[in-house]
Amino acid sequence: MNSSPAKPPSPTTTQLCLTALPGLPLIGPGDDLSGLILEALARAGLSLLGGDVLIVAQKVVSKAEGRQVDLARVQPSPQALQLAQETERDPRLVQVILNESKQVLRARPGLIVVEHRLGFVCANAGVDHSNVAGEGWVLMLPQDPDASARRLRADLERASGAGLGVLIIDSHGRAWRTGTVGVAIGVAGFPALLDLRGRPDLYGEILMSTQVGLADELAAAGSALMGQADEGRPVIHVRGLPYPLRDGSLAELLRPRQEDLFR
Amino acid sequence: MNSSPAKPPSPTTTQLCLTALPGLPLIGPGDDLSGLILEALARAGLSLLGGDVLIVAQKVVSKAEGRQVDLARVQPSPQALQLAQETERDPRLVQVILNESKQVLRARPGLIVVEHRLGFVCANAGVDHSNVAGEGWVLMLPQDPDASARRLRADLERASGAGLGVLIIDSHGRAWRTGTVGVAIGVAGFPALLDLRGRPDLYGEILMSTQVGLADELAAAGSALMGQADEGRPVIHVRGLPYPLRDGSLAELLRPRQEDLFR
Repeated sequence: MNSSPAKPPSPTTTQLCLTALPGLPLIGPGDDLSGLILEALARAGLSLLGGDVLIVAQKVVSKAEGRQVDLARVQPSPQALQLAQETERDPRLVQVILNESKQVLRARPGLIVVEHRLGFVCANAGVDHSNVAGEGWVLMLPQDPDASARRLRADLERASGAGLGVLIIDSHGRAWRTGTVGVAIGVAGFPALLDLRGRPDLYGEILMSTQVGLADELAAAGSALMGQADEGRPVIHVRGLPYPLRDGSLAELLRPRQEDLFR
Repeated sequence: MNSSPAKPPSPTTTQLCLTALPGLPLIGPGDDLSGLILEALARAGLSLLGGDVLIVAQKVVSKAEGRQVDLARVQPSPQALQLAQETERDPRLVQVILNESKQVLRARPGLIVVEHRLGFVCANAGVDHSNVAGEGWVLMLPQDPDASARRLRADLERASGAGLGVLIIDSHGRAWRTGTVGVAIGVAGFPALLDLRGRPDLYGEILMSTQVGLADELAAAGSALMGQADEGRPVIHVRGLPYPLRDGSLAELLRPRQEDLFR
């Protein structure tokens, strides 16, 4: 639709540009995701520069890593059978959700909210059955999204010589707001949490407790461009982040359980 | 820092560009915010086009609307005195927070989580004492951020002849993740909630329950560019949203209380 870019900014202007990489094929187990990303970057006329960030949809990482599960091969446990009845879901799907979870926090028809084994709270343990080829197959999150992000980053840095950040993102619901938003579930070379504590504000007062979930903010930005139904935009290139890159990880974004007021 | 823009995209490429408007002055009561935004757009060499979106930090809207409160003129109630003791806050600040709230959900030293009178759940009712000129003054959220967004939109559309979206944003914490993220608290001319339910996915299955908090995703994108301590980037221009604009409001983003599993 409207995709004519903004004019080049004046030198004092800060501009953040997100570009959806064109022409990525449907991804399957064993595909070389970093190779496909490099080809798509070339197709878009983009050379990677230091400070650039790649935002990658969880689904394509999971598919490349073979995280599909054939429900026909899943044997539901008594716990899964009971939770399936309570939530009106397929007991085999519920078993996959339980396998991926530390704890079930809430359950109601159509929804199971869990603490994922990776430490975040989300619906249905991120297990998805849309956009998975094959009747009766579902897709789990990557085994270790931080490690997936680190591998992608290493491949892309090796190919480009540029220092990069990589975010692997999923869409999560929120406790009190409708709609999903993109959040980071895997982080490499990116300041997941940006600590502005102790910096003076414009009037010289010290900011007391401002920590920004920068990886989640950028994940949301990427998600706005990706869409949901259209898996044709699963990788977003970002240029112009107004903060320096550094090492980072998902763990920065997880609220310690003892600080959790709402579990 | 690194702010060289991405190259112009190829015709098949989708690109979302956010530009922080340069040179906005410190805002005070009665300032003509839309006029100042138009001047800053001109300074950035940007003409408004149909489909463009402006993201505006709540603080500058609140300041222009005179939402500063002099704590010296606040008389705390017995409820405020008790909550102030529990949370180790200034009783007068607590009174302002209570004035802006429907209900206190959680309280602990340094933190009061409320349902704001506007319907969302947030810390300290959005009342802020950083970046407010004057010892002992605090800043409340705009009286009616949707209305503020509509007024800004009307002014900017009148001046430009273009159909625009406007988001007024604040930074909120999350129940289970650390760090704040930008969220929309006022919406005009923008699809706050994007309903992808009923659209087929790439394999022809129907997406069952995908509603995207698009205004919050774009708010987060804007917030990533604004920063927190530096009030010099409170207005962000956005071009390239891959969805058509429509009427919208904050109400779309508020989960009905009967669906709330975590209050």
